[in-house]
Amino acid sequence: MRISESFIPTMKEIPSEAQIPSHQLMLRAGMIRKLASGVYTFLPLGYRVLKNVEQVIREEMNAAGAQELLLPTLHPRELWEETGRWGLYGDEMLKVTDRNKREFGLGPTHEEVITDLVRREVRSYRQLPVILYQFQTKFRDEIRPRFGVMRGREFIMKDCYSFDRDEKGLEINYQKMVQAYKNIFTRCGFKFKVVQADSGNIGGSLSHEFMVLADTGEEALYYCEACDHCQKAKEEDDNSQAGREKLSCPKCNKEMTYTRVIEVGHTFNLGTKYSAAMKATFLDEKGEAQPFIMGCYGIGVSRIVAASIEQSHDANGIIWPLSIAPFKVMLLPLDVSNEQVKVTAEKLHQDLQAQGVTVLLDDRDERAGVKFKDADLLGIPIKVIISTRNMAENKIEIKLRSKNDAIKVDLPETLSKIMAMVKA
Amino acid sequence: MRISESFIPTMKEIPSEAQIPSHQLMLRAGMIRKLASGVYTFLPLGYRVLKNVEQVIREEMNAAGAQELLLPTLHPRELWEETGRWGLYGDEMLKVTDRNKREFGLGPTHEEVITDLVRREVRSYRQLPVILYQFQTKFRDEIRPRFGVMRGREFIMKDCYSFDRDEKGLEINYQKMVQAYKNIFTRCGFKFKVVQADSGNIGGSLSHEFMVLADTGEEALYYCEACDHCQKAKEEDDNSQAGREKLSCPKCNKEMTYTRVIEVGHTFNLGTKYSAAMKATFLDEKGEAQPFIMGCYGIGVSRIVAASIEQSHDANGIIWPLSIAPFKVMLLPLDVSNEQVKVTAEKLHQDLQAQGVTVLLDDRDERAGVKFKDADLLGIPIKVIISTRNMAENKIEIKLRSKNDAIKVDLPETLSKIMAMVKA
Repeated sequence: MRISESFIPTMKEIPSEAQIPSHQLMLRAGMIRKLASGVYTFLPLGYRVLKNVEQVIREEMNAAGAQELLLPTLHPRELWEETGRWGLYGDEMLKVTDRNKREFGLGPTHEEVITDLVRREVRSYRQLPVILYQFQTKFRDEIRPRFGVMRGREFIMKDCYSFDRDEKGLEINYQKMVQAYKNIFTRCGFKFKVVQADSGNIGGSLSHEFMVLADTGEEALYYCEACDHCQKAKEEDDNSQAGREKLSCPKCNKEMTYTRVIEVGHTFNLGTKYSAAMKATFLDEKGEAQPFIMGCYGIGVSRIVAASIEQSHDANGIIWPLSIAPFKVMLLPLDVSNEQVKVTAEKLHQDLQAQGVTVLLDDRDERAGVKFKDADLLGIPIKVIISTRNMAENKIEIKLRSKNDAIKVDLPETLSKIMAMVKA
Repeated sequence: MRISESFIPTMKEIPSEAQIPSHQLMLRAGMIRKLASGVYTFLPLGYRVLKNVEQVIREEMNAAGAQELLLPTLHPRELWEETGRWGLYGDEMLKVTDRNKREFGLGPTHEEVITDLVRREVRSYRQLPVILYQFQTKFRDEIRPRFGVMRGREFIMKDCYSFDRDEKGLEINYQKMVQAYKNIFTRCGFKFKVVQADSGNIGGSLSHEFMVLADTGEEALYYCEACDHCQKAKEEDDNSQAGREKLSCPKCNKEMTYTRVIEVGHTFNLGTKYSAAMKATFLDEKGEAQPFIMGCYGIGVSRIVAASIEQSHDANGIIWPLSIAPFKVMLLPLDVSNEQVKVTAEKLHQDLQAQGVTVLLDDRDERAGVKFKDADLLGIPIKVIISTRNMAENKIEIKLRSKNDAIKVDLPETLSKIMAMVKA
């Protein structure tokens, strides 16, 4: 893709509305724009990252035996009355009344809707287990939307639900999902911790939170570097060192490390909370009706995009990992008036696209400084610099966004060198 | 994918709620389920088709120079007041009030939101043209939701918007989009017609409707088989032959053919309708502010799934074209108790997946009749029949869902034969 034909409206100044690095950089790099409080547009560059994150999640969900579907956004009030959550969810649920005076909630989560589907379609233990998931826009009317897409009112989640005949079955699927989550966050390049946690509003007895380490995280935890035990820090949300207690690991007695974290995933053992309330049952071997044993598994997809930037940026901009980068390669011809530079860049652009590699060509007639600055802001992992000086030696330069040193490569080897880096 | 592990809840009986074939078959084949009037879940099989349709559209949009983004669903009332459509859209727009008493509409279409984005980000003629599109769930509170996902209240659209500096620019992009639409509907396997039409509610001076030929269509048109001239039929919506006038082609005077049609796409020359109302301007070469010249281009993505079935089915079920089929190949081992049959089917399943071909393996211990019936209902294009009798001759049978005759293939040639069919 040519930058001259791309809709990537970058900003030089740090926007005053944004307090944390990911929010500032997503605005500056032309990834998102705000429409209303907690309501954002994903511009083409941001949307590319979102789609890449989705694809990583999809591959791991499918590998774990989950099947993708798409549930509705409009949830009839009656379904939420069955679990008592129409009232419980309160103002956090946005509500709409249709022309026939029927009330709907805009789905903030989908336990009621999926349980209703499964109770209608699954009758026998022979049809179990069933694991279903979706990517969908969720709506939650947060009291304090903030930090851009980190805590929005309209945001994208992957939510997954498992239905089993017994606790043993749930345990197997639950562990599969925990493993899938670890794979996902590892592939996204995160440093993260898994914390056994209270299950809060969604209910059930056991849950795990997946926490990305980042200074600006809204939550905090202690972890043990020796045995990997984690526990949430119960302290004020003031991000300060003051008043923080020292904690010893309850397992190995070593002093634990404190860190701020961002929650990106949450798994819940729901048990029969929803199936009992909604009379969702199947027939067991004896022909007796039993409630489904359920689990639910969420990932904040749009939040991952922001969390990745929180964890990986510098003073100049974003530093994407290859796995979710909007483009893997950025071509920087420094003098487009030099025919050889231009032709070399165009050729690489074409060759990389033919190999299925996403590539952004900065074909603008701009100074080298401007191009380097924008490249650093956008954070594309592999930068290929094509300059008049290097052309004279029949070389180009390759620089990783994550490292300072550049390597010189003989021109004929450029493509194979880049391909090796892309596949690494 | 193994059918024994798939969530494909088929139905034997024709559901009484469904009047037209696509609605009946989408329910029976386990593609969709209704949650509320005009509100449907896409089950895994239906979702696969939806995603395939999306991918065809995406490829053609990108090839035409459009860039994908994602606009919000929650639209502030103030934006719609600028064009006067908050009141004009009336009860068809679902509305929600947040906890701070701010009013939002659930986006039924996105002219206001995209125009607001572009007026903030595009300042100079040098940044034009810009063509942006998205896939998104839209909400329209139809008076008469019906025919399943054909006319829903929550449905998926691809909407695209072009911004140009002048009419000449718009004309170029408009024609690119018309061509992209022709490519899309051709790739989806449709018999379709393009009609120059009134532009209705969305506004502007010129528009084209893309109409799929189907007996159950809600609209009707006359077309000339000689010169391809089309015009909409102005008659009662009674689907009867009675009272239909005979029409001669205004271009070549031949008698025109009457057909029922389903609208699947619509392109509009919007001119300055929205940019003028919203004061969305750019600076031209002389530094003078000019309103953007806009076009908008919609495709009913979920509707295409239904329209495809309307156009391509028989008494036994759906007949998918390869391009959007949920699986390209269905493997039918007829006697899973025969070890050779089972092993052959499993091997083909593995080999096809390794080649990236979507394949459904009917691994159930069911009678041949049951398997054939379900295969016909699901409509997967390439059926591979592995039976004890054929095994004895070291052969398998391949049958296209769209044709009656089967071909026998030597076992070692099966994979290459299927691959050739998939790529055809």
